[in-house]
Amino acid sequence: METMRWADGCLEILDQTKLPGKVEYINCTEHRTVCEAIKRLSVRGAPAIGAAAAYGLALGAASVNAGTRKEFLTAVEDIAAELAATRPTAVNLKWAVDRILAKLKNCDCQAVNELKALLVREADDIYNEDLASNKKMGEFGRELVPDNAAILTHCNAGALATAGLGTALGVIRAARDAGKKVSVYADETRPLLQGARLTAWEMLQENIPVTLISDNMAGYLMSLGKVNLVIVGADRITANGDVANKIGTYGVAVLAKEHNVPFYVAAPMSTIDFNLASGKDIPIEERAAGEITHFAGIRVAPEGVGVWNPAFDVTPARLISAIITDRGVAKPPYGQSLAKLRLP
Amino acid sequence: METMRWADGCLEILDQTKLPGKVEYINCTEHRTVCEAIKRLSVRGAPAIGAAAAYGLALGAASVNAGTRKEFLTAVEDIAAELAATRPTAVNLKWAVDRILAKLKNCDCQAVNELKALLVREADDIYNEDLASNKKMGEFGRELVPDNAAILTHCNAGALATAGLGTALGVIRAARDAGKKVSVYADETRPLLQGARLTAWEMLQENIPVTLISDNMAGYLMSLGKVNLVIVGADRITANGDVANKIGTYGVAVLAKEHNVPFYVAAPMSTIDFNLASGKDIPIEERAAGEITHFAGIRVAPEGVGVWNPAFDVTPARLISAIITDRGVAKPPYGQSLAKLRLP
Repeated sequence: METMRWADGCLEILDQTKLPGKVEYINCTEHRTVCEAIKRLSVRGAPAIGAAAAYGLALGAASVNAGTRKEFLTAVEDIAAELAATRPTAVNLKWAVDRILAKLKNCDCQAVNELKALLVREADDIYNEDLASNKKMGEFGRELVPDNAAILTHCNAGALATAGLGTALGVIRAARDAGKKVSVYADETRPLLQGARLTAWEMLQENIPVTLISDNMAGYLMSLGKVNLVIVGADRITANGDVANKIGTYGVAVLAKEHNVPFYVAAPMSTIDFNLASGKDIPIEERAAGEITHFAGIRVAPEGVGVWNPAFDVTPARLISAIITDRGVAKPPYGQSLAKLRLP
Repeated sequence: METMRWADGCLEILDQTKLPGKVEYINCTEHRTVCEAIKRLSVRGAPAIGAAAAYGLALGAASVNAGTRKEFLTAVEDIAAELAATRPTAVNLKWAVDRILAKLKNCDCQAVNELKALLVREADDIYNEDLASNKKMGEFGRELVPDNAAILTHCNAGALATAGLGTALGVIRAARDAGKKVSVYADETRPLLQGARLTAWEMLQENIPVTLISDNMAGYLMSLGKVNLVIVGADRITANGDVANKIGTYGVAVLAKEHNVPFYVAAPMSTIDFNLASGKDIPIEERAAGEITHFAGIRVAPEGVGVWNPAFDVTPARLISAIITDRGVAKPPYGQSLAKLRLP
């Protein structure tokens, strides 16, 4: 099952809001459909959003009616801004559109049609590089996974969050493929249940033993000595190693520290925002109250209740045992180790 | 709204599984209906379960067809065992039925009809004492609540968990009634959403400002400095001050410690099990997988996934700032302070 696929000027996005009950693809022939799919979380996970936005930009550009290179660039910049504004926290989104815009600007080509083709090629590159990146993270990360490891993960940092094998789940897959026995505890991950719906489903497809828990069970589970390590993905990592990831990640990290359980983050270099010094600078998306007050259209909480619904939180670097990237494993202090991985 | 009411040989139990959408009472005219209501969590919360079991025993005893006191006692003991077996963790259940059995045995009376009347009186006493106990906890506990406090609570330790005002929420109500400005953050409390369905609803009824969050948001909320204190109820407290309470309580306690936020437990003396030395001796109920894999009859998680669903966890005494009882506030070391409160 592919998270997205590009064919003949159409981006097909797997509608993850319907998993695991239904497998349906959304056909995107214009960039606004991609914007909506990102906002609705039909496609989610930082690397997957980056790739979807790249194809979205190619789609939007394809329909630009411009006579000159300059007109074309202006129109494409507007489309890029629309795509970048869909979700604020995952940095891969902005990284992908910025990378394509830079490519366009650095290209001497004057013919609009050639520029349009360039955008598609660049989106393909981003997609394919993410596939390769997942493999690399798996190779580096599997060394950190002991045999017979019981691994707790939060949200879905799997194939569905990327173009390929996944970040956190990619490491788990790689450890298993290297002959290690692994089992997974999946936090269900309220409010949108990416753990219950997506991670559990991916692990079952792979025949990796998976046990679902509600988020508030992680502490008790660790206190019983049942977790050997935690591994999660990331939506943005700052230069000092602070990590924004799905809401609840921070709580899991505090619990891991309390129980001396290693806490790992797996993310490609494209998730690292070297422009931000620390996590307190990361914009945290707040989402609609209905995600918490309702469930599958059914009202759960009484009318009139206040709701706070941040989609992410920030885990400080001091709680993170290592960051597994596609260029190697960074250990504290992250200011130095991440900068070193960035070197050509 | 009453959690339960006794009238003319019938126990009416508010069906909390239907709140806040519907207000419906279950009419119990035999003890097995009470057993089912307790198992299904139509009535829940340690003190409320205790009172319901007491009335359940009176109901069961009323229909015993016994010629002698001895026959009657044997039959009532069987009914008591059935009631006590409905849920293993909350000690108030066993406390209530044991108290009534002891009263019966200590009574010289030979007439079965008089013994039946005695059971109803004793159940009434348990119910009314719980009302009084809630008031006392409120009086003691409100002193610990500063003005303008933002209070995080988990699950529902309110009127709906007791015969009266609630344990944790009783303290919040008492602080407000004493003129303090308070606001509440309610953890939704997966899997059965007692926070979203019951605590939010109770606080709205009282016009106490309440903000609903999913359980995994508590850590981020605390990291932003938005919580002044945590207060929760208890299902069983051991002699050393360890506390079994709704799953997730332990995680909140670890987070509170990490952020130097006071963590209080409010519970009547009947919740303290002086027979158990520490929390590791408390039996923890595990409930059906369907509570996590399904929601309102809709499957959320894929078929075949493993599930772990403990209904409670144990918070060690070292994470608890104070235990608010109906006989006063216990501070660490709890082995001494709780024993002292127990003295006549």
